[in-house]
Amino acid sequence: MKKELGVKNCLYPMPVTLIGANVEGKPNFITIAHVGIMDFAHVCLSMGKIHYTNGGIRENETFSVNIPSADMVRETDYCGLVSGRKFDKGSAFETFYGRLGTAPMIKKCPVNMECRLAMTVDMPNHDVFVGEIVEAYCEEELVTDGETVDFAKADPILFAMYDKSYFRLGERFADAWSIGKDLIK
Amino acid sequence: MKKELGVKNCLYPMPVTLIGANVEGKPNFITIAHVGIMDFAHVCLSMGKIHYTNGGIRENETFSVNIPSADMVRETDYCGLVSGRKFDKGSAFETFYGRLGTAPMIKKCPVNMECRLAMTVDMPNHDVFVGEIVEAYCEEELVTDGETVDFAKADPILFAMYDKSYFRLGERFADAWSIGKDLIK
Repeated sequence: MKKELGVKNCLYPMPVTLIGANVEGKPNFITIAHVGIMDFAHVCLSMGKIHYTNGGIRENETFSVNIPSADMVRETDYCGLVSGRKFDKGSAFETFYGRLGTAPMIKKCPVNMECRLAMTVDMPNHDVFVGEIVEAYCEEELVTDGETVDFAKADPILFAMYDKSYFRLGERFADAWSIGKDLIK
Repeated sequence: MKKELGVKNCLYPMPVTLIGANVEGKPNFITIAHVGIMDFAHVCLSMGKIHYTNGGIRENETFSVNIPSADMVRETDYCGLVSGRKFDKGSAFETFYGRLGTAPMIKKCPVNMECRLAMTVDMPNHDVFVGEIVEAYCEEELVTDGETVDFAKADPILFAMYDKSYFRLGERFADAWSIGKDLIK
């Protein structure tokens, strides 16, 4: 039997990211799992309008998407608990800059993307920032075939909101565009 | 050391969904993992413009998001391999309709959301459909606290594109908005 849950976003689990931006000239990071893929070169992220980071993204028109691994769960959660208005979250990490120069990235995160702000979708209480990916970075030992990120090794954090859960990634159990072929008649 | 990967979307793993729409009066489903959260009541999904399902979403201005469990991986993959132009994918599932009447949902999927089309973001090769969630449905035995989906029990499929991987969800290992509290000084 199905139970009706009302107007409830159930699109979980989602990957946890640390979004980086320079705000008032200093690197800042915020934990965001309400993210999405727009196409092969564009991602989106939904940020409550009250957040400090939004101003930096608007000002520089750049941001980064950093994917922390499970062993970074404390720092990752911390960046979602406190505001950059009061806490210097940039100094919690060793950072680096890429082509854009104003999108701070976290060295310790195994995967990083630097993005140019392409569009902002104005939702009632959220800015949805759409970023054009300018360059992606990955720790060398996680790269297979010279260009593919091994996400099992990246050990990302997955999030479900209502019971405040952080999950790890489980086993790779099937091949996409393959396991269903025997159903084609 | 970081390796540069070029313009490469690395926002994975993402949850695999089956998107439902009536097309030419019949239910159809397509496998989409390029999805996202816009805010508490809105999701987005990126669909290549060539797909058959897009016409149905435009026509009815409704669609559903169905979250299959790992034991549905064959049917799920199949719906990403073949087009509704040639194959009757709707008949592969027992379906139901909710409040909107034109957004077919899959009974076997533990979690379903029916959505009204709120906006379409026109990307060069993709339609990004933004849906306002009208009602969410969940199998009763997966609901805790009367309203929270237990995603560990839902056993969703997670996707990474470049190595064509389907993963399972791993262990719940930490509490969000909590594990990082000891870093607040």
